[in-house]
Parts: sequence; C-alpha cells; structure tokens
Amino acid sequence: MAGDVKNVSVSRAEVLTVSEEILTAVGTPLDYARSVAESLVQAQEAGHASHGIIRLLEYTDSVQRSVIDPAVSPTIFRDEGATAIIDSHWGWGQVACKFAVDVVAKKAKELGIAIVSIKECNHIGRVGEYVEMLAAQNLISMMWCNADPAVAAYGGKDRLFGTNPLAVGIPSNDVPVVIDFATAASAEGKLRVARANGLSVPLGAVIDKDGVESTNPQDFYDGGALLPFGGHKGYCLSLMIELLGGALSGNHPSMNDGYSHGYGTVLLAIDPEKFFGGALFKDEISEATKKISATTPTKMGQPVLVPGDVENNQRKGNSPLLQISETIWNSVKELKLSL
Amino acid sequence: MAGDVKNVSVSRAEVLTVSEEILTAVGTPLDYARSVAESLVQAQEAGHASHGIIRLLEYTDSVQRSVIDPAVSPTIFRDEGATAIIDSHWGWGQVACKFAVDVVAKKAKELGIAIVSIKECNHIGRVGEYVEMLAAQNLISMMWCNADPAVAAYGGKDRLFGTNPLAVGIPSNDVPVVIDFATAASAEGKLRVARANGLSVPLGAVIDKDGVESTNPQDFYDGGALLPFGGHKGYCLSLMIELLGGALSGNHPSMNDGYSHGYGTVLLAIDPEKFFGGALFKDEISEATKKISATTPTKMGQPVLVPGDVENNQRKGNSPLLQISETIWNSVKELKLSL
Repeated sequence: MAGDVKNVSVSRAEVLTVSEEILTAVGTPLDYARSVAESLVQAQEAGHASHGIIRLLEYTDSVQRSVIDPAVSPTIFRDEGATAIIDSHWGWGQVACKFAVDVVAKKAKELGIAIVSIKECNHIGRVGEYVEMLAAQNLISMMWCNADPAVAAYGGKDRLFGTNPLAVGIPSNDVPVVIDFATAASAEGKLRVARANGLSVPLGAVIDKDGVESTNPQDFYDGGALLPFGGHKGYCLSLMIELLGGALSGNHPSMNDGYSHGYGTVLLAIDPEKFFGGALFKDEISEATKKISATTPTKMGQPVLVPGDVENNQRKGNSPLLQISETIWNSVKELKLSL
Repeated sequence: MAGDVKNVSVSRAEVLTVSEEILTAVGTPLDYARSVAESLVQAQEAGHASHGIIRLLEYTDSVQRSVIDPAVSPTIFRDEGATAIIDSHWGWGQVACKFAVDVVAKKAKELGIAIVSIKECNHIGRVGEYVEMLAAQNLISMMWCNADPAVAAYGGKDRLFGTNPLAVGIPSNDVPVVIDFATAASAEGKLRVARANGLSVPLGAVIDKDGVESTNPQDFYDGGALLPFGGHKGYCLSLMIELLGGALSGNHPSMNDGYSHGYGTVLLAIDPEKFFGGALFKDEISEATKKISATTPTKMGQPVLVPGDVENNQRKGNSPLLQISETIWNSVKELKLSL
C-alpha cells in the first residue's frame, strides 16, 4: 500500500511560491513566509515529506487558533558569555531557529563553543536543516528539543517524553555528516500513515494502554505510547533531551506541572579551528567517511551509508522537479484557494 | 554459571591501600596512585567490576610495556576561550580526566559552556565518574571517547569504531541523573565473561567474520565484530563519538591511518546558572525524576529506573564492606606479592 502513493512533479519555484502565498495569507510578513516556505521545501527535497509542505495545513490552523503568532520577531532574552536564551514569543519556530543559528555561530567562532536555547518556541521543522547551516560555516553542532509527551520510559506504561529529535552536524571536505533522528522508535507521523493504510508496524515501536507491545498503530491512539529506540540506552537519550530541552529553554520537561506545549530547543556549536585547526579536522572527517562508505557490507549490493547519504540521494531525485504526493499537493492547492 | 561467582567482603580502606601499593610499586607517585586507586574503587562500589580493581593487572602490564608512563603529569596543550586541549603525555587517563574536569568546570562557570579534549590519553576508567564530579559542582556535562576498532557500522562487516562510551551528568536536588553507556550493543568485557563461562550472548550484539549475527561470543574473537546498539540510530551515535572523539583530541578516528591506540576524549560542561538559574534548574530535574520513578511499570514490581539508580543501589550493597569476586581479589593480592 505504502508504495502506491501517486506523485506529481512540480518545480521548486512553484512549490515555494504557493507556500509563501499561503503563509502571507494568514498574516505572515513576506520575509518570514519565505523563510518558513524555504524550510518546508528543503525538508521535502531531503525526502522528509512528513516535515514538508504537508505542514502548511497544520501551521495555518495553528495561526488561526493563535498558537502561532505569524508576525512576531525573535529576540534575545538573555546573553552571557558563550550562552544565550532566544525568545521566540510563540512566533515561527523556523525563524527563531535561524536566528539561533546566527547567534550560536558568532559566539562559537569567538569562544570555540557556544550554546543557545529557545523559549516560547513552536514547531521547528526538520532539525537537520539547522545543523547543516552550521556545518556550512565549518562548525560542529548538536541540537535537540522536547515536545508533547508521547513516549514511555523503558519499562513504563505512561507517555512521559516527546519524540525528542537529536541532530548532529559535522563538517568535512565533502558533504557534511548530518545525523537527525527521533529518539522514539518511530515517528508519530509514520503511525498515522500506517493506520491510514491499514498496515501494521514492527514490534518495538508501540505499546497499548496496558503496556503490552503491539503491531497495531491504533493502539497508540487508544491510550498507548511509543517506545524509545534502542532499549534502555535510547531511553537515556530520550530522557536527556526531555530534561535538558525542557529545563534550559524554560519550556519545562513535558511531565512537569509547568509544561503546556511547545518545543524546548537547545543548539550548541563547536569550532574545530580552536582544536587542531579546521582544515585538519575536515581532512580527518573526510578520510573517515570515505573508509566507512568503503567498508564491506553484510548484504551484497547494500553499501554502508554515512548519516546524510539518504537525504543527499533524495535531493538528487527531487531535482530539477520536486516529486510530491498528488494528494498532498492537491490539499495544499485547495488550502491556498480557501484562504 | 554467572550467578556462581563467590564474593569476599573487604573493607574499602584495605582495597584502596592494596591498589595504591601496586600502583606505587610500578613507579606511580603516591598522589597519582591514590587518584587511580580511588577511581577503581569507586567503579567497584558502583557495581562496574569490569572497570574496578581487575584493571590493576592490565594497568601494571601497560606500565611495564611503557604504554602508560606512570609518573608524567598532564599539561595544557592549548587554551583559548571556552576550549582547551589537555595533553596527558600517555600518563594515567584518570589523572588527566580529573585535571580536565577542573579545567572545564572553571571555564563553564565563567562562560556558561566549555569543552576540553585530551590528547595522548590512556584508558580513562568509568566515564560516569567524571560527569558525577561535575554534577556535584552543579554543572551539566557530556563526555565521550573513541578507542580501538571493535564495532561494525550498521550494515557493515568490518571493525570500524571503538565501543565508544557516552556519559551525561545532570544535577538535581537529589542524586544527579548519571547516564553512562557503551554505544556498542555489548561491552567487550561481557563477551569475555560469557566465553569464559561457556555461555551464549543475545542476538544483536555480535556478528561473525562473515557478517552473520551470532550468539557465540567466540565469533567476535575469530574475526567478527560487535554491533552498535539500537540499529541505525545507535550507529549514528557510535560514529559521532568516533569522529569527534578522534578528531578533536588529535587521537584520530580509529579507522584513519593516523590512529595507533588510545582514548580520544572529549568533555563538555554547561552551567545552568546562565539560563534560568541553577536552583530552578535543579527543581525542574527533581520534579521530573520523581515523576519518572513514579510512572506505572509494564511489569508489576519492576519500577522504572532513572539513570544512576542501578549504581546507587550497588553502592548501598558495597557499604560498609565491598563485595569482590574472590578470584579477582586473589589475583590482585598475588599481583601485589609479585611486584
């Protein structure tokens, strides 16, 4: 069933224009509309349709419900040494993140490492985008955020953690290494697709309301929970992101009384120039990634991938024309007409 | 078989004295001998016998083979802004790490975040110890190191990565959250124990020389490899530690031509005081850990654990007297007589 999605081919410029028009129609200033639209198109190009233009439906709804304030600008709430807190004022998460990228990059280039958090932050889109921006500036970076509780603790029944993504960007002489994954065993979006198509999900992703592992995605929606990836070790990472994302951003860990909603975001950047020099660092990373790519695969014809390879391959397939699910593209065009 | 280990009860003071005497007998100055012995005893108390006094056999051998220079002192190789490189000069890894803890703590308290790497570094022991030291100073910290290749890439046959531990310490009003795990699915020490006892290991930890998953620990030693934990996501973390641990410390990623041996160590610390204040941060963490501990378990009578709980329970069992395997204690006493 999942392979039956019918795609249409659309030019990047057209997708960008339609997205901008939707965003400006709900009160987003043109520069912010361009920024958010560009982020959605980049996620679409990288093969992450779940973070692509389909989000326009949810985002316009969030603006109409006053969850997103489309015209507000991020500001610096606190700035000290190698740290800063950005206040997004419940504006666009993408706009706040790009502002945070600029702030953390400037500090990291000066001091060698810097960290910023973002308070009052809405959905930030594909986290990998921001670590890619920092890698393009020859900076190493790590980024994570917490979110509404959906994931159980290892050995627990209740929803305690967000799906809590972790992204890491490492510059090289070639394409950067870009790690970007949810610490939940499965993204909630994948359950939604499986449920819509009447498909089951692999064991290890979902527990039902009684805490029993299930292959039925509906069990998540009937009071169950997602599981962290990788057993107790993945649980530790999910917990780390929840605690640090929530407590350093003022968004609160999502199991705490102070939490209401939002994405407690933390971004740190490191300048390899301050260690053994940026050029030598990139040489080391390029030598290593070449050796990883060349390692003998366990299955003939399935070479080992370096994090970022999947997205780079998808980008090739989405150029010069983006391949978009016809259903999604039609719903975006209908949304535009409705505004 | 594993349950048949016969323990002896020994006082902390006696274990510490015997360990110090062994270390000084091979040329370690008394203050460094005390520091390394204290680290080994703490690992033993925390229930990590694999990183406890059993290491004295390997360490004295390393001194005798001139891998460890027992009398050399760590120095600062480079110091700039919020960064530093410590040179351990192939001395004791534990001594270099405690020096690194002091350097990173001072910088983090001043600038809000700091990062140090350690070059020419020998085995550093239990990584959790150092993040515990930083948590006791109310600092958040993350630490990792690379090591000799033992772990395959996801989908690959060859040994490319070290077992690459990751540790994270998060202060609270109660005990700190202490995460400390190998990004390999199993520590090599566990395979060694299983092999010695003629036991099998669970699927997902080892592949044989042909890249086929195996439950026979011997297959690792016959040209196989360990697997990363948690599939492609755990692979990403193992790779991140290998690249950053190797390239920021000058130890090189272990698949690169420049790598010879050693532990490319990176330690970063964050001061929550610079965000919403240290007291509020600890309140948030304590509220969250209480809620995590109180979550409904999937199995009756098996409460959900917060990272660090296992070690704290072990510490209770090892007080006032340490419980040590009789075999290990006898071999340490024999070692002392032989020096």
